[in-house]
Amino acid sequence: MTKKQEYNYLLRISYDGTRYLGWQRQKSSEKTIQGKIEAILSIMTGESVEINGSGRTDAGVHAVEQIANFKTGIDLDPLEIRDYLNRYLPEDIGVNRVERAEPRFHARLNAKAKTYCYTINNSGVTDVFCHRFQYFYPAKLDVSRMREAAALMTGRHDFRKCSFAKRTRKSTVRTIYEITISEENGIIQISYRGDGFLYNMVRILTGTLIEVGRGAMKVEEINRLFDPEDETRAGFTAPAGGLTLMNVEY
Amino acid sequence: MTKKQEYNYLLRISYDGTRYLGWQRQKSSEKTIQGKIEAILSIMTGESVEINGSGRTDAGVHAVEQIANFKTGIDLDPLEIRDYLNRYLPEDIGVNRVERAEPRFHARLNAKAKTYCYTINNSGVTDVFCHRFQYFYPAKLDVSRMREAAALMTGRHDFRKCSFAKRTRKSTVRTIYEITISEENGIIQISYRGDGFLYNMVRILTGTLIEVGRGAMKVEEINRLFDPEDETRAGFTAPAGGLTLMNVEY
Repeated sequence: MTKKQEYNYLLRISYDGTRYLGWQRQKSSEKTIQGKIEAILSIMTGESVEINGSGRTDAGVHAVEQIANFKTGIDLDPLEIRDYLNRYLPEDIGVNRVERAEPRFHARLNAKAKTYCYTINNSGVTDVFCHRFQYFYPAKLDVSRMREAAALMTGRHDFRKCSFAKRTRKSTVRTIYEITISEENGIIQISYRGDGFLYNMVRILTGTLIEVGRGAMKVEEINRLFDPEDETRAGFTAPAGGLTLMNVEY
Repeated sequence: MTKKQEYNYLLRISYDGTRYLGWQRQKSSEKTIQGKIEAILSIMTGESVEINGSGRTDAGVHAVEQIANFKTGIDLDPLEIRDYLNRYLPEDIGVNRVERAEPRFHARLNAKAKTYCYTINNSGVTDVFCHRFQYFYPAKLDVSRMREAAALMTGRHDFRKCSFAKRTRKSTVRTIYEITISEENGIIQISYRGDGFLYNMVRILTGTLIEVGRGAMKVEEINRLFDPEDETRAGFTAPAGGLTLMNVEY
């Protein structure tokens, strides 16, 4: 018996995560991005399709470009897959592109870097069009101090104290290649590019930068965050709605 | 008895109209922008406040900047009015600014020009972040033909056939100062600046431009639209969600 030929497809997916329990499929619920896409692909192919995302995103987190792949025994036209998915997906999930991938390509295992963007509305007035994608923070933040703190976060550190991960033997060391902070008309965007992020890490780093920006934490305290023996604690976990996965690099 | 002194305030208001029955207060429903704002101002002032909008917007239509004014016997700080409103308004209505206005200022009667923008997503892929503010139109549109048709719509014309207004003795003559059409990555934005617009007029002009863009109407037919004796009919009424009131000039 010859092994069934498998075709591997890469999906580029956007979503407004407001209504969802996050990326990852859960047993009891249909309200996940992965679950929605798998259900439609399973109907399209007649197979039980499983997709691999580049990583989980939390409940309420958005994606400009999440990457996933799936394998099937059927040779499908990538454009046909895209149009089929977009026809049946709800309006807040969209597939921007489908491509044929190398047989060994795996969206999670092959990911080299990811970029997340966190948006803070510090203008004093909510934006009725973008409030789903922004964290409205009324007290004035000092962006230049936040930039100093962000510079100290950049690099290879033990981010154990900047994550809600359970005590684990797995490494909590990650490398942040770059953090850039832009500000325009009171809209602050913090972009994080790194080799990987722990559970809630971007939201906790953002909460920490906010504490620095409002003057409740000192810039110098950042270095102590990465010393597991030191008692300095990270800031609060910024709300999910302000966070967007921007892209994944391979 | 001296006449009670009246203070006149101008409001600059944004809204995502998706959930509302439109700007104008209705007897049976709270689901209007005007109704929401009046209810809060009445509590704030202890008076029965009525606000004058620059004009109605239909159910589902949005505003980047709608203008309204209201009078009260109480001398209030404009910033205080803004913050009070924003504290109690839902997330999809926002007051960007409140200013003191001349006693005779009236948002509707003094309006000199308005600009509306209609957004068509012609990229073939829905935008999960902006779908509330775009009309997704899958068939390819010829933007250069739409621009030719828009040039013929510009100027002073009888727009009776481009409106759902009931037969009325009121004039249906309006002047469109300018229509500009931009296109970027399949997102077509049509901006209309005019001295006033009849009921549904912008949505019908947009539906007409779409008919031209897809080749179902000829550019030359536009001129005949403005001749009440001619049988040429306007295009369909484009959906409300794509339409946004951008600003009002005084």
